[in-house]
Amino acid sequence: MSDGGQKYLMEQGKLARQAARILAVADTRQKNNALLRMADDLEKAADEIIAANRIDLQAGQEMGLTSALLERLTLDKGRITGMAEGLREISLLPDPIGEVLEINRRPNGLEVGRVRTPIGVIGIIYESRPNVTADAAGLCLKSGNAILLRGGEEALNSNRVIARVIAEAAMTSGLPAGAIQLVDSPDRQLVIQMMKMNDYIDCLIPRGGAGLKKTVMAHASVPYIMTGMGNCHVYVDEFADLSKARRIVINAKVQRPSVCNAIENLLVHKAAATKFMPLIAEELREAGVEIRGCQATREIVPWIKAAAESDWDEEYLDLIIAVKIVKDLDEAIEHINTHGTGHSEAIVSENYTNVRRFMNAVDAAAVYANASTRFTDGNEFGFGAEMGISTQKLHARGPMGLRELTTTKFIIYGDGQIR
Amino acid sequence: MSDGGQKYLMEQGKLARQAARILAVADTRQKNNALLRMADDLEKAADEIIAANRIDLQAGQEMGLTSALLERLTLDKGRITGMAEGLREISLLPDPIGEVLEINRRPNGLEVGRVRTPIGVIGIIYESRPNVTADAAGLCLKSGNAILLRGGEEALNSNRVIARVIAEAAMTSGLPAGAIQLVDSPDRQLVIQMMKMNDYIDCLIPRGGAGLKKTVMAHASVPYIMTGMGNCHVYVDEFADLSKARRIVINAKVQRPSVCNAIENLLVHKAAATKFMPLIAEELREAGVEIRGCQATREIVPWIKAAAESDWDEEYLDLIIAVKIVKDLDEAIEHINTHGTGHSEAIVSENYTNVRRFMNAVDAAAVYANASTRFTDGNEFGFGAEMGISTQKLHARGPMGLRELTTTKFIIYGDGQIR
Repeated sequence: MSDGGQKYLMEQGKLARQAARILAVADTRQKNNALLRMADDLEKAADEIIAANRIDLQAGQEMGLTSALLERLTLDKGRITGMAEGLREISLLPDPIGEVLEINRRPNGLEVGRVRTPIGVIGIIYESRPNVTADAAGLCLKSGNAILLRGGEEALNSNRVIARVIAEAAMTSGLPAGAIQLVDSPDRQLVIQMMKMNDYIDCLIPRGGAGLKKTVMAHASVPYIMTGMGNCHVYVDEFADLSKARRIVINAKVQRPSVCNAIENLLVHKAAATKFMPLIAEELREAGVEIRGCQATREIVPWIKAAAESDWDEEYLDLIIAVKIVKDLDEAIEHINTHGTGHSEAIVSENYTNVRRFMNAVDAAAVYANASTRFTDGNEFGFGAEMGISTQKLHARGPMGLRELTTTKFIIYGDGQIR
Repeated sequence: MSDGGQKYLMEQGKLARQAARILAVADTRQKNNALLRMADDLEKAADEIIAANRIDLQAGQEMGLTSALLERLTLDKGRITGMAEGLREISLLPDPIGEVLEINRRPNGLEVGRVRTPIGVIGIIYESRPNVTADAAGLCLKSGNAILLRGGEEALNSNRVIARVIAEAAMTSGLPAGAIQLVDSPDRQLVIQMMKMNDYIDCLIPRGGAGLKKTVMAHASVPYIMTGMGNCHVYVDEFADLSKARRIVINAKVQRPSVCNAIENLLVHKAAATKFMPLIAEELREAGVEIRGCQATREIVPWIKAAAESDWDEEYLDLIIAVKIVKDLDEAIEHINTHGTGHSEAIVSENYTNVRRFMNAVDAAAVYANASTRFTDGNEFGFGAEMGISTQKLHARGPMGLRELTTTKFIIYGDGQIR
């Protein structure tokens, strides 16, 4: 661990805290101008960004990153324009800060209200995709928060240029120097340090896999919002429309298996299984999906391999699915509430009462009736961009947009009241 | 540490988790009936509660508890009726669960909504006042949450009877056995264990002093809501109505100095100080308040003793006040944002622009214009009872009522939509 890095990070924290106080009272026009300038300057710096990205890509190839990771890491003119367009879209969203949620007059004449305010300083820890750097900084700036960005080591050269360009654009627009800062070091100890900087970071958003989740749970004293743990299910009810069920299962499993809102498990009511399982098994096999089934599943489709108990808890993020036949809706709900990670869960059913029970009893960030779990996404829900998908219950749950980057304060107007 | 205690606490956690699933879908009438029965049964058990409380009081006297603590620990018929009335009031509040906050139709025909749901299992760690046992259990039950109660060792006998009576009343009303459980042990290691029971506790609410805060920050992996840290200020502006200022300062400091919404610091604009300081110093002295002042304060009122730098950060919770004369509103805001704990902060001023700047720029759970900070309280704000006063920014900020014991989930209705 480098002491220099630690001290530098503390200085960044202090600068972020100072910047946050100024950002909190910055007016909307100034923030929007900064976002538009950030977008323009990113496009102007495209060649420089692509050159830095080439260095990351070459190092990534030498380190043996998978082609999927290399693909996520890659930037080209199109993706840089995409980042710029993202920032322009954020500039068009309504400013959440200053919204008065309510004011009530109390019997003693006090007016007690609540107003939306920024959280302060947000720390984000994320992995290979460098476009998160621009998205996260844009959302935080619009919501009046300073941000400390700690991207993956494999994208450090790309992130360095992107962060410098947008931070300078924000400063040129009159916003403070500490508003957008990159933690510019591959030292992993600095990630641990961020988790303990309670004086300088108000909220930590870890975006990564199970390893990062464990590290955060073990080390963080800074309040955090856990994101993106997705062991998701589709339950095909006794009263499902089986053609809808096939479409939804295939979409939720196959369209993009590496993301958190893809499903890992299929639950099928026993009364639907005899007809449904042979159809869906064939379709999944054709799509290249490995199927692991419970005993009852294998009695219907013998070529399916056996699922282990551990399969019900595994997030494959790959073309693998575990299938369980359940005796009723209750067993499905119980299974989901026991093994799910509280991300996205779906029922396929035409039965009013069963849909209603499922929607009420399943405990997850997003519960679907007759639609694919793949819609759990800030853009799909209509929030513009997103900062991540919270799978915890405190503060934010599900896709996090601008509103989730705010807190409230009570404002009380009196004329001399005392108790 | 007793292994038996640890295992028993895990069993309690499991039972709470099971109960939470049932409570989450319990209907309002059933929850209200349980609250009314809990109230009746507490009153019927008054003699037994008082007898148990006598044992706690005697042990407390032998342990040398202060008279203030013994007073808080004491239960009599009046206080038991108070607890019962509190539960009846909670039964009259609207049920927060099931409230649909919004539903929007997306271009693809999906209806995306948000509905209010319980958090799940709440763990509360609190100190001597046994009436918190009934208040906290009542609020959690109404908001559909199971609760694990860990009261102070000094109130264990009282809490044991209260918890048994209300838990039995809830069960008699058809609610599950694990809905209300007391962690019935003086073993402090169990408090640490609660902080790490992520599988069984969704949210921890520590209510206590700086020691508990440190322990939570060092050990908790369960998400928590920090409550009640109160280093509060009144700022008397250049344009203050000095008679309002005197009333507010005296009330905020003297009426109940031991609570978190009492002030610890007075900031006075230099243009108001010459006239205001001699008046307020005399009045504070008459009320028995020790005053510690900055150099400029002591030039105006020489008998005031000198404040140390550490005084700006101390929460006295006693009849002591630190006074600082500031050169302008900016210095006051800067001082508050640097030294305050983000609880309750007040400006006394007749100047529109200064009030507006203070309300916007001060970063605290409750910001007052021309009223005493002592109003930061669930009852005073009109929430009915309160679970504590959050001084953090995530999830809840300020007095926590029923709404703050809930989360939301997205509900999505489709007819076969896929991505």
